[in-house]
Amino acid sequence: MKHIESRANPLFKQLYKWQSSAGRRNEPVLFDGIHLCQSWLDHDRLPRMAIFDAARIEQPALVALIDRLPDELCVTMPGGLLAGLADVQTDQGVIFVCDAPTWTMPKRFEESIVLLDRIQDPGNVGTLLRTCAAAGIKRVLSARGTAALWSPKVLRSAQGAHFALKLYEQLDLVEICQNLSLPIVATTLAKSTDLYDTKLPEHCAWVFGHEGQGVAPEILSQAKLRININHDRAAVESLNVGIAAAICLFEQRRQHRVS
Amino acid sequence: MKHIESRANPLFKQLYKWQSSAGRRNEPVLFDGIHLCQSWLDHDRLPRMAIFDAARIEQPALVALIDRLPDELCVTMPGGLLAGLADVQTDQGVIFVCDAPTWTMPKRFEESIVLLDRIQDPGNVGTLLRTCAAAGIKRVLSARGTAALWSPKVLRSAQGAHFALKLYEQLDLVEICQNLSLPIVATTLAKSTDLYDTKLPEHCAWVFGHEGQGVAPEILSQAKLRININHDRAAVESLNVGIAAAICLFEQRRQHRVS
Repeated sequence: MKHIESRANPLFKQLYKWQSSAGRRNEPVLFDGIHLCQSWLDHDRLPRMAIFDAARIEQPALVALIDRLPDELCVTMPGGLLAGLADVQTDQGVIFVCDAPTWTMPKRFEESIVLLDRIQDPGNVGTLLRTCAAAGIKRVLSARGTAALWSPKVLRSAQGAHFALKLYEQLDLVEICQNLSLPIVATTLAKSTDLYDTKLPEHCAWVFGHEGQGVAPEILSQAKLRININHDRAAVESLNVGIAAAICLFEQRRQHRVS
Repeated sequence: MKHIESRANPLFKQLYKWQSSAGRRNEPVLFDGIHLCQSWLDHDRLPRMAIFDAARIEQPALVALIDRLPDELCVTMPGGLLAGLADVQTDQGVIFVCDAPTWTMPKRFEESIVLLDRIQDPGNVGTLLRTCAAAGIKRVLSARGTAALWSPKVLRSAQGAHFALKLYEQLDLVEICQNLSLPIVATTLAKSTDLYDTKLPEHCAWVFGHEGQGVAPEILSQAKLRININHDRAAVESLNVGIAAAICLFEQRRQHRVS
């Protein structure tokens, strides 16, 4: 196992650079913490590099990870150095440096997909990915202006959902919507029908939009169905976008379930 | 309008102390930002004190607030001082210092309530409150060990839902459950039925539990209904607690709506 002792080490400098650009296109991504690293291995993938806190490599959870990795991929460093690469909120003694999987876009989508139209908050985006995976969605397409899907905060709140999805980002969703084989279903307050009065298609392209502005008009105008979720508007103006998405996706699941 | 110029001012010291203890029982709470302060006034309440950035009191949004306040409640201070009291993420030039409303507990609950059993993450708790209010829930009861309902992070993610709810916190939920007139409905994976196979009561006490451990066994054992939300378990282990709650509460709304 390689060992890095100093911040001056060229490999550490490289890691630090990657950490700062985490989530940007074509840059490696950093998975922080035992659960994410484990999930990555469970999906039959290897990291470029696995970095461990030198003082903790005897801990059972870390030993279990090390046992699954080729020795040449493993690096140890002092906890203080590792903390400089880690997310502030978790420090579990392990970080994987990985290449985010890239997927080709199929000519036609046969099954439901979810489109994220400029959703800003990384926590919302992460929870959305987790909800999509739970609802059986296989592909999520994200517009330019949406929080970077592979950024540390999105990774943290998605709890491993990234590995169960095919993710596409930095897209021009307006253009994509023009050529979609699936009906587009958008949530919006204006000129829309109540979700529970709507017979949802078995497969569709769901669009969920910006926290403040909602779905872009150029996409809305292409929607086959415009739906709203009836709620107590005297109490709160609107639902959180991740909550709205969950209610829609699970209602579709309910309508089309085989009981 | 009073003006504070220095950190040494006793009133500033007092405000700083309140800011650090925000959300603790019997301490005043701080509402940070225009939307929350506006909502407070919209609910026919006044703050103990309203603090403004002296350099911004000509801004239309702040003028609109000042117009609704008795002059003796208003204080100005330099932006640098105000920032020391504000949440890091928002700095809109206004903070209200308020007394969190307290409510008496009715002898019997007639309408659905939501019980929060040790939910840790303030973002989850805030989104839960927003979802409860949207679903038409009027009262939320929170166990000791749940994130403080009036803390700045919970306030931020609840987006004003606090003012549409009657909130009770620091409770012994096990004891409360023993004396409830409403049937208890808990979400859990073990020995539970599918939400969509369940005829939900029109009024019940929903229990949502700790992010990792779920609902406490002492409460689960008192539940009349134990339900799960069927999801793609190969993709993700579980749903976020706020998402699970939204799916349940809106399914109850769907089942009992007047169409």
